[in-house]
Amino acid sequence: MKSSEALSSKIITLLTDFALKDPFVGQMKGVILSINPHAKIVDITHEIEPQAVEDAAFVLYESFHYFPEGSIHIAVVDPEVGSQRKALIVKSQGHYFVAPDNGILSYVLKEPFYAVCIENERYFLRKSPTFQGRDVFAPTAAWLSKGIEINEFGSPAKDIKVFKTLYDTEKSDDKIVGKIVYIDRFGNAITNIKPEGKKIRQIKIKELILPVVSFYSQYPHKPAAVINSDGFIEIFIYMGNAKETLNLEKKQTVEAFLDG
Amino acid sequence: MKSSEALSSKIITLLTDFALKDPFVGQMKGVILSINPHAKIVDITHEIEPQAVEDAAFVLYESFHYFPEGSIHIAVVDPEVGSQRKALIVKSQGHYFVAPDNGILSYVLKEPFYAVCIENERYFLRKSPTFQGRDVFAPTAAWLSKGIEINEFGSPAKDIKVFKTLYDTEKSDDKIVGKIVYIDRFGNAITNIKPEGKKIRQIKIKELILPVVSFYSQYPHKPAAVINSDGFIEIFIYMGNAKETLNLEKKQTVEAFLDG
Amino acid sequence: MKSSEALSSKIITLLTDFALKDPFVGQMKGVILSINPHAKIVDITHEIEPQAVEDAAFVLYESFHYFPEGSIHIAVVDPEVGSQRKALIVKSQGHYFVAPDNGILSYVLKEPFYAVCIENERYFLRKSPTFQGRDVFAPTAAWLSKGIEINEFGSPAKDIKVFKTLYDTEKSDDKIVGKIVYIDRFGNAITNIKPEGKKIRQIKIKELILPVVSFYSQYPHKPAAVINSDGFIEIFIYMGNAKETLNLEKKQTVEAFLDG
Repeated sequence: MKSSEALSSKIITLLTDFALKDPFVGQMKGVILSINPHAKIVDITHEIEPQAVEDAAFVLYESFHYFPEGSIHIAVVDPEVGSQRKALIVKSQGHYFVAPDNGILSYVLKEPFYAVCIENERYFLRKSPTFQGRDVFAPTAAWLSKGIEINEFGSPAKDIKVFKTLYDTEKSDDKIVGKIVYIDRFGNAITNIKPEGKKIRQIKIKELILPVVSFYSQYPHKPAAVINSDGFIEIFIYMGNAKETLNLEKKQTVEAFLDG
Repeated sequence: MKSSEALSSKIITLLTDFALKDPFVGQMKGVILSINPHAKIVDITHEIEPQAVEDAAFVLYESFHYFPEGSIHIAVVDPEVGSQRKALIVKSQGHYFVAPDNGILSYVLKEPFYAVCIENERYFLRKSPTFQGRDVFAPTAAWLSKGIEINEFGSPAKDIKVFKTLYDTEKSDDKIVGKIVYIDRFGNAITNIKPEGKKIRQIKIKELILPVVSFYSQYPHKPAAVINSDGFIEIFIYMGNAKETLNLEKKQTVEAFLDG
Repeated sequence: MKSSEALSSKIITLLTDFALKDPFVGQMKGVILSINPHAKIVDITHEIEPQAVEDAAFVLYESFHYFPEGSIHIAVVDPEVGSQRKALIVKSQGHYFVAPDNGILSYVLKEPFYAVCIENERYFLRKSPTFQGRDVFAPTAAWLSKGIEINEFGSPAKDIKVFKTLYDTEKSDDKIVGKIVYIDRFGNAITNIKPEGKKIRQIKIKELILPVVSFYSQYPHKPAAVINSDGFIEIFIYMGNAKETLNLEKKQTVEAFLDG
């Protein structure tokens, strides 16, 4: 039938801290394709720093909505694997998420969403104390992509763990105070400050006052900030590396001055 | 016809030491898709350390069986490329393997298996002294995925090179002595010791006695061991890096003490 | 219809300096698959050094022709993003290229080729000062893969920027003088010297005279050169790393001595 065929060719994305040198990611893909040969597997990233659940939450938030509705996103940065932490399937914003309950889904949950605990071992590859990415999350997502109904996997989930870092800003009449939440491969430091239409000409980081410009090459070789393509203030050095030059780190305070 | 269509959409996995920065992996994929546009190419890894054939053999062993039967696995860590070393297609355990004859297939060969030498230049992209991954192995695998019969590629192969490291353990009444065979991205050190149902409470590595626990987060911040999801004893530090903290290296001796 | 179906399952390759740890590459893939769910996305590499446009031009040149004709190649190493630099679609040698006009297409342009400026914002995800890889190049390529005619995207492009490094050699009766243009993950240094049938027995790099051999393992543990599988002279150390041992760098002069 047409509809089930469409369903079974669903996109399944992967986001982990497994890196690419080991067999882990290949094993997950093998498990998925053994269950649903028509799944379209797309890597978001496997280079999250080991156990950096907050980074993973941010990257997932930045990525999922570019995929078609109905996509299934597996997110496994899972330091507590094997413990009593819950495993979840969540439907939110038209997308499905399959992940441990450790905050990794913080920024993709939007009311009304629906969440179940992954409990039905019938859909596991095996019980697994050390690698549920392969043994629990991958097969669950693969069966979900084949059209198994979400309630088949377990009972409704409550009290999902969430971080609030991305929303942790202080707004006053003349400024927004936030912090660096992510540093990318170019050494650009992304903050949690979203001007949302407000005009900002300058920011302050570590006693430095930086101008806010429109695009990178507009301000060569010296530190500056832009409103990036996702709406966040981002600190950069064009043709340089802001993280290294300014010793930037996650959680450092940033002040954005609103225009008079 | 239905069956040949199914055949031509076969999975082809890639395992190399080519890394991802250079054109090598993309070239292999281009060659495969030019021959069989319906091939489903899946990366196992390209981050094997340069020329580390034993690591590649271990990762292939850990990975291939998670893929559907009939999958074709290209494994190219090939320091002797251009020399007289043989090139192989092997059918073993329902899977196909396309690789140089240098030990990389050590742990996937299981009697009865069938092996041929890759000799038929009709299926090569070109003769190639420096990059047979692209010029010999990729096109051979692609033609194999299109249904070309295995004997078309060459004559039966004998005396395939094998490592025995993974089986090199000493078992006595009170312990199993083995060694570290692989270290993963988390710094976890995987040994070649498989308890296979026997109860093990402690192991010894470099004069340290470590407890064997059930899952990582059960034993935070201090070194310990688990039976990992593939059945091997694995040394770890939860939320830490055992390799760095304990200076672990491949080939170091590990003793596992059997319970009374 | 069969032909449009074939068209919409076109290969789209990606070549960037975005690396794999951040959301950038996943976002591009999401954008492409949202427009054309049947696109077959293949990574060439995302590990070009940040802003190394010349490296990207070389890797693209080495890679594209292994893919089937009609493939679409997105190449985004784009330090000037947001400035007035043009964005291009080029049809050359039966392939399509989607890239900024900064020299990255230098070595794939071959007369007669056809180029247009990407101007039609109807096919953009959004206007974007900082990430046109996702917001301009990915959606343009995806629409192109769906059969949108090349002239729909903008007006013909003139004065495309090109590097000439790859052709910058001096040939005399007894030698060819060129330079190192690329260093691969094994530490092999690839030069821009193509013997093209001429016999070369020795090369000179940094006062060292090296023999030219037929394949790597023929000359173990000491520096030597081969004609590599793309026809360029390449300096290597078998089971070693020539870049590190000889302190090789891009742009260093290499002399190849023609046989008497």
